[in-house]
Amino acid sequence: MSHGASLTFVLGGARSGKSGHAERLLMERPAPWRYIATAQAYDAEMRARIAAHAARRPAGWITVEEPLDLAGALAAMPEGAPVLIDCLTLWLTNVMLAPDGRDVEAESLRLAGTLARPRGPWIVVSNETGLGIVPDNALARRFRDAAGRLNQMVAQKADNVLFMVAGLAMQVK
Amino acid sequence: MSHGASLTFVLGGARSGKSGHAERLLMERPAPWRYIATAQAYDAEMRARIAAHAARRPAGWITVEEPLDLAGALAAMPEGAPVLIDCLTLWLTNVMLAPDGRDVEAESLRLAGTLARPRGPWIVVSNETGLGIVPDNALARRFRDAAGRLNQMVAQKADNVLFMVAGLAMQVK
Amino acid sequence: MSHGASLTFVLGGARSGKSGHAERLLMERPAPWRYIATAQAYDAEMRARIAAHAARRPAGWITVEEPLDLAGALAAMPEGAPVLIDCLTLWLTNVMLAPDGRDVEAESLRLAGTLARPRGPWIVVSNETGLGIVPDNALARRFRDAAGRLNQMVAQKADNVLFMVAGLAMQVK
Repeated sequence: MSHGASLTFVLGGARSGKSGHAERLLMERPAPWRYIATAQAYDAEMRARIAAHAARRPAGWITVEEPLDLAGALAAMPEGAPVLIDCLTLWLTNVMLAPDGRDVEAESLRLAGTLARPRGPWIVVSNETGLGIVPDNALARRFRDAAGRLNQMVAQKADNVLFMVAGLAMQVK
Repeated sequence: MSHGASLTFVLGGARSGKSGHAERLLMERPAPWRYIATAQAYDAEMRARIAAHAARRPAGWITVEEPLDLAGALAAMPEGAPVLIDCLTLWLTNVMLAPDGRDVEAESLRLAGTLARPRGPWIVVSNETGLGIVPDNALARRFRDAAGRLNQMVAQKADNVLFMVAGLAMQVK
Repeated sequence: MSHGASLTFVLGGARSGKSGHAERLLMERPAPWRYIATAQAYDAEMRARIAAHAARRPAGWITVEEPLDLAGALAAMPEGAPVLIDCLTLWLTNVMLAPDGRDVEAESLRLAGTLARPRGPWIVVSNETGLGIVPDNALARRFRDAAGRLNQMVAQKADNVLFMVAGLAMQVK
């Protein structure tokens, strides 16, 4: 692991303040801060969410949009650079819905392997989606299972794991 | 802030013991205890829930029903009185479904401002609803976003924040 | 309570690592380890889940399948034996869907009473399902309420309560 390199995992529900908290954490490091956005603006609702996120970030942020090849985007990050990956849940959605029929488990393992060797202060954000009622439809159940497994893999590799509750961070690891 | 005034925020899932815990906490103060109920009995299921809640509360409780004007109901509370507000989630539902088309964000900000200046030991209960799969329908997604934002605002103002898990309180703040 | 007897309650979402954590905890005790499985393989998806769980358990495990009479299965366990009950959520599903129309609340109380008197190191696993949006259908709401009440009863009796987040255990009690 490089000097000053570490992996912080910020996990939480929708509107739990994950991204805001992760941004503030990363900004404790010197600028510039890299932001790897996995969101794809495929409808108006998503475009509005992405714009709201971007508007909150001040100068000093360099945004990279990468819906699928997160491992590649991370490999291209400068040594020692503070990086925020936001978020794993949308990346997983993109992988599951990719028209070329990807192996979700294999891609998850590969990404977790990359995250296990941070080359700077890296912070990764993800959604917890498994604490509601079992979803009616099979795709949602498969997604929930894949997301839970991915979150476990990343949490195992992380130096710090935070669980967000109403904007407040609980230290889990 | 008045002498002895404080805001405690009790957050949790359905059937996590939020109301029961909040009632026991408030009853550590001298009676009478004010209970501001935001529930509206618009169907049989809801009537049964309200009745079950009320039946659990012993003598010494003064119940005020206020589905919409929570800020007004709080302004009418006596100085120093122990007050339980149960719950923000139903209040938000009422605001979102109000026929006069209210500005949910503005009303949430106004309520959070009132809660930030407690005039006695105030306890406010709310549901965490963002830890499941993304809901299919757009109204549920808007509700989940608005609820998460409101919970964050209130948690930020609160002196104590408790996250309920199977009837047990985890101190978050 | 027998010598060395205790009840540990492992609660968490789908794919939060509940079963794996509970198995590792139990295997800190001397073999053989009893596994009471409440799952019923009524479709292909469930058969695959059960097979995946079983494949992970090494030699030294004795599996008992008991979808409904958990209190009876526990009464048949040897004095002092380490036992894993996995999980309460499926047991509750089985009780609610049983063709003989069982009293869910009475059965929950009876099971909680049995768990309150462990005769060895017993670990019980359950799902938290109340942290998402209110489900559309009434059966799901009834299930969620019954599951939350059962979880509260068991957590109250337990010596240790763990809340699982991405494979990591938070000590709640």
